[in-house]
Amino acid sequence: MKNNVLKIGIIGLGVVGTGVVKTLSSFNNIKIQTVAVRNLNKKREIEIKNLTDDPFEIANDPEIDVVVEVAGGVNPCLEVLKTAIKNKKHIVTANKELLAKHGDEIFSLANENNVTVLYEAAVAGGIPIIGPIKTTLRGNKFNKVMGILNGTTNYILTKMEQEGLSYEECLRQAQKLGYAEADPTNDVEGFDTMYKIAILSNIVFHKKIDCSKIYREGITHITISDIACANELGYKIKLLGIAQRINDNDERLDIRVHPVLVNENSTISKINDAINTVLLEGHPVGKIMFTGPGAGESPTASSVVGDILAIASEISYTDTILPSQRVNVSENAIQEDILNTANSYFMSLDAPNTRGVIGIIGSICAVNNINLQSIIQKGIKKDNTALIVVITEKTLEQDIQNAKKELEAQNINVENIIRVI
Amino acid sequence: MKNNVLKIGIIGLGVVGTGVVKTLSSFNNIKIQTVAVRNLNKKREIEIKNLTDDPFEIANDPEIDVVVEVAGGVNPCLEVLKTAIKNKKHIVTANKELLAKHGDEIFSLANENNVTVLYEAAVAGGIPIIGPIKTTLRGNKFNKVMGILNGTTNYILTKMEQEGLSYEECLRQAQKLGYAEADPTNDVEGFDTMYKIAILSNIVFHKKIDCSKIYREGITHITISDIACANELGYKIKLLGIAQRINDNDERLDIRVHPVLVNENSTISKINDAINTVLLEGHPVGKIMFTGPGAGESPTASSVVGDILAIASEISYTDTILPSQRVNVSENAIQEDILNTANSYFMSLDAPNTRGVIGIIGSICAVNNINLQSIIQKGIKKDNTALIVVITEKTLEQDIQNAKKELEAQNINVENIIRVI
Repeated sequence: MKNNVLKIGIIGLGVVGTGVVKTLSSFNNIKIQTVAVRNLNKKREIEIKNLTDDPFEIANDPEIDVVVEVAGGVNPCLEVLKTAIKNKKHIVTANKELLAKHGDEIFSLANENNVTVLYEAAVAGGIPIIGPIKTTLRGNKFNKVMGILNGTTNYILTKMEQEGLSYEECLRQAQKLGYAEADPTNDVEGFDTMYKIAILSNIVFHKKIDCSKIYREGITHITISDIACANELGYKIKLLGIAQRINDNDERLDIRVHPVLVNENSTISKINDAINTVLLEGHPVGKIMFTGPGAGESPTASSVVGDILAIASEISYTDTILPSQRVNVSENAIQEDILNTANSYFMSLDAPNTRGVIGIIGSICAVNNINLQSIIQKGIKKDNTALIVVITEKTLEQDIQNAKKELEAQNINVENIIRVI
Repeated sequence: MKNNVLKIGIIGLGVVGTGVVKTLSSFNNIKIQTVAVRNLNKKREIEIKNLTDDPFEIANDPEIDVVVEVAGGVNPCLEVLKTAIKNKKHIVTANKELLAKHGDEIFSLANENNVTVLYEAAVAGGIPIIGPIKTTLRGNKFNKVMGILNGTTNYILTKMEQEGLSYEECLRQAQKLGYAEADPTNDVEGFDTMYKIAILSNIVFHKKIDCSKIYREGITHITISDIACANELGYKIKLLGIAQRINDNDERLDIRVHPVLVNENSTISKINDAINTVLLEGHPVGKIMFTGPGAGESPTASSVVGDILAIASEISYTDTILPSQRVNVSENAIQEDILNTANSYFMSLDAPNTRGVIGIIGSICAVNNINLQSIIQKGIKKDNTALIVVITEKTLEQDIQNAKKELEAQNINVENIIRVI
């Protein structure tokens, strides 16, 4: 850093990159040296002097102090950032997939090279969450972190409920508005939420998280019938990332991503459209909730720029980053299999419309240690089958899966199982 | 700081001080050297080795690195902290009154002496808000900060609405539960909220704020009739601290504390009991909201301990605090008089039950440039006067005050005026 001006290179000039360039224009202590893009000839909203299509040019440029990566994806970002770190550059990244899968390797390398990696924008867009957990809240022991972490799926679920339209129709609308990508898998199958809850779990519980052990279920199987039944029973359906200790002070962690029936009177049930929210429960702080825009050019740029300015402010005084900014790499988390966790369940069943069928359902549940809170026949379909909705009390996931098999052996089709909190 | 152990002195061992001592017991890099209390002989929940009734003993102890002030009030805290700062001690304080009234003097002195003053606990208890504004969100230009900043008054208003009890009865309940003090003036007259919105305005708008220019109104005049009328019209009543630019990019600030009718569908209307919430609007981040416990032993201790650990972490590496942690003292804010601001208003009127009275009200409003959204007669009282409720469109405060005088000259008593957002 020369003359108190921080020189940065930006990798990626999509929505977020463009927002970062615009926001930085009002800070004269930050100079954008080079921006790496995929296609040099694409017409762009903003003019950049030095464009390159080789991100390694930035990683190897001795003039650059900080590499800002807003391209996304593992390749080539992993290798680019590793090269930059070895060249003693600090990193600001919004790349949740990269951090969730390779954070360990990246942070170890950063520690060896005495540089920092900041990533406020990787979780919940514009909402300050990584920073507060690592600073203001550092005196706490947390038992739970949970949230609506993906704007696309929350938008789709909100539209399905408010307009009574199918998942497919709402996905199309989201794609038209630019809320969902042409291939929506990453959002709608819960991968994006999984990366984010993995990153949050890491800083909340101080453990390495293995993404492959996180139970993950998306929203593609949610029907408007499920939503209507849930509404009638006083619930909304939200896709949540959840990470919690199995018991208070227990080292075993229960981390998962799936749709959840939340009580319509809870604050989380009021978070609609593309808004994100993160809830934390810890001691001594109690329960706190952070709500705001989870994606988009401007909100994400706010977090990326906040990280860049943090580095500028630190190294303008010491010419090196403080170790306190670095992430501790620590031991592996003990991640509990979802089969061993207890939940309440909403089950929608497609059963033959015959006398005694409710009795059969009740018996199968009883045999599998499942106490029922309610069992309601919601109507007869054209094919003379009945839609039956069951809500259970707290039950082991393993017992529910066993009951499912036994129900299906009796020609009672389990159309959907959704957990309730 | 010797052997990587930070020595602190604590001033005040009430609810918050006790929470801080308990929380610090799990951090072996922090040593509590001395605690200053008012009464040495009082029986206490926790045992402290070194107690003193002279806070200056702490301010002058060369062994102590950080003075933690959780006593409250201006005297003797101002002189104690000034002495500590001159002795090169860092400060962590939860004292909103002191910072709102004398922050300028304290921060200037801290800058001269190269020490830091942290105060996360002074606003919204356990909710991280000072830290995020000064770090993650520092790339933003804010237009507004607003919130429910006082748990006591929010508890009283919630009870009044939910149980239909008078202000006096709900205050008594709050006092019984320890939510309100024997002399509740500081909370119920809006002083506490005023100090907090002054502190927030300072860091959001980077200006010195003059508390004496903040319009302040408490909740003591709110009746259950006001709450019932508001509910019928689709509103809840909340005591808010509000600070906003008169227009976007305008340097003139509109800062005030008063009860507000908020739409029943807004998220802020759902914040009940002693919970606090802070809303920020800025660019590029958009709108974000922080919600959580605003007071109490544990939540406030979370913020105080977060600040202590921040100082420990910084000086363990550099043995001096970074200037970036310090607050910039800057120019005076231009604070607009509330008479020049425009608001919607709810007015409850006590009018003679005579033909033509609604016409008179309508005419007086029209003459004073007030457009009415609705005017409803709510019933006839025993003394043959009518309760009439008026909701106006956006109107200058000066015009409302003029209309009030003219209405009263016509024997139409203006029982309450509450602003609407």
